[in-house]
Amino acid sequence: MGALTEIASNKVFGGFQKVFSHESKYLGCVSKFGVYLPPQAEEKKLPVIYWLSGLTCSEANFIEKSGAQRYASEHGVIIVNPDTSPRNLNIAGDSESWDFGVGAGFYVDATQAPWKNNYKMFSYVTSELIQIISENFPILDGKQSIMGHSMGGHGALICSLKNPGLYKSVSAFAPICNPSECPWGVKAFTGYLGPKESGEWAQWDATELVKSYNGPPLELFIDQGSEDNFLQAKQLLPENLVEACKTHHVPVIYKKREGYNHSYFYIASFIEEHIKYHAEYLQK
Amino acid sequence: MGALTEIASNKVFGGFQKVFSHESKYLGCVSKFGVYLPPQAEEKKLPVIYWLSGLTCSEANFIEKSGAQRYASEHGVIIVNPDTSPRNLNIAGDSESWDFGVGAGFYVDATQAPWKNNYKMFSYVTSELIQIISENFPILDGKQSIMGHSMGGHGALICSLKNPGLYKSVSAFAPICNPSECPWGVKAFTGYLGPKESGEWAQWDATELVKSYNGPPLELFIDQGSEDNFLQAKQLLPENLVEACKTHHVPVIYKKREGYNHSYFYIASFIEEHIKYHAEYLQK
Repeated sequence: MGALTEIASNKVFGGFQKVFSHESKYLGCVSKFGVYLPPQAEEKKLPVIYWLSGLTCSEANFIEKSGAQRYASEHGVIIVNPDTSPRNLNIAGDSESWDFGVGAGFYVDATQAPWKNNYKMFSYVTSELIQIISENFPILDGKQSIMGHSMGGHGALICSLKNPGLYKSVSAFAPICNPSECPWGVKAFTGYLGPKESGEWAQWDATELVKSYNGPPLELFIDQGSEDNFLQAKQLLPENLVEACKTHHVPVIYKKREGYNHSYFYIASFIEEHIKYHAEYLQK
Repeated sequence: MGALTEIASNKVFGGFQKVFSHESKYLGCVSKFGVYLPPQAEEKKLPVIYWLSGLTCSEANFIEKSGAQRYASEHGVIIVNPDTSPRNLNIAGDSESWDFGVGAGFYVDATQAPWKNNYKMFSYVTSELIQIISENFPILDGKQSIMGHSMGGHGALICSLKNPGLYKSVSAFAPICNPSECPWGVKAFTGYLGPKESGEWAQWDATELVKSYNGPPLELFIDQGSEDNFLQAKQLLPENLVEACKTHHVPVIYKKREGYNHSYFYIASFIEEHIKYHAEYLQK
């Protein structure tokens, strides 16, 4: 495990919003992540919530725009947010579109060349990053939850569904709920996982994964703005996930927010509720 | 007065964060400003707080990073935030440095060529913008306050000190308090106002203006992070302003925030307190 390099530290709401870089074993590149350490972290070990961002984001968007630090400070939780893909690898085709390659890792482990050596965001988030965080910060062992937005909402859902018991709770803002059936997902999965006939897609699609979920009780908290243009464009498909949850007896909370769109203005308006939700699970 | 063009509208904390553009008479260009309309604006007229941003900012920084919308919604106040300079004029030299010209209007009315025809941010903010806002939004007549950050903190101070009674209250985060005596101010004032011998500088310098303030009681609320590198570099000089206030019996609140720097993380941490402060004056 390589050492961490601190590249930013700003006091905010009594704690510190930091950014670190490190050499990632899984990603084969230098990767950055944010860590918010609330004031309570100076005195004791705390639970941690992971945040996964959406398409085109780096670690910066959430840090600057979500306003999460206030609520993390109030509830005494650490928040960690990784980048959305490997960086600076210059793989042919990795920067030709905003919804594939750099900024668009989709939180899968790629099986296809030329992506399979580095595009392993799933293993990075669920294994390497958890180990780094537990080794370097005052984390209560096993007390972790996960949330995300859009592509990162998809990421949060599959990370929790594929690792029963690893996260105490999961929530998602406007997640891509059924990537096998939407244009973004079809493009990304074809590139990273091969054609649908490969049989790989269902292993990375929340709507498919709930159908075979077999682990400790896990409630999915899905949040969605009613005026989200990507909802209207059928990129998100929450109705498919909610239906699969009902059929397969996976508890789901589906909150529709009247008038809100897909932006960080929407996230900022409701992140307090999500952090409170996770904090309750993490303090059990 | 030209018409407004709405160029963004996002629901946030129950209200709408909007951005408009318009042809400015004083600036001689198309200018943008943000308006946050809290939910109460749908039913009644409200007070308004103006926010002036710092060097290099456009209207976007405050909108995306301050988190002010939550508190504006809680207190039922509209927030308006203009750009920091004229744009797209291509005046020779307007983009050669980050602390002069575009993004650095310093909220003065320039007297020197080639700036004097367009760099009139003072008149824009204190006259044209107030009229536009009152004509287009549900504003309680005369119920307005002003705040800002760094160069915009200087702007808030001089706008209120030069217009006794126009604003009900004024506050500033890490303001440039004595521009005649700091490198940023000397550069900007020399360019916009001519050499110090012109005698113009004292008319645009809060520390000088408090010495001759003669109007309704006005309390200056100055906020300052202790770890602000621009404080350490003697760009801000709050001690000069506080001293002048004491000598000339102008009430001043000076709050030092231990460990905070010059960033929007600092602003986000304390903007609730400022909005509450203004709301109390505005509801009198």
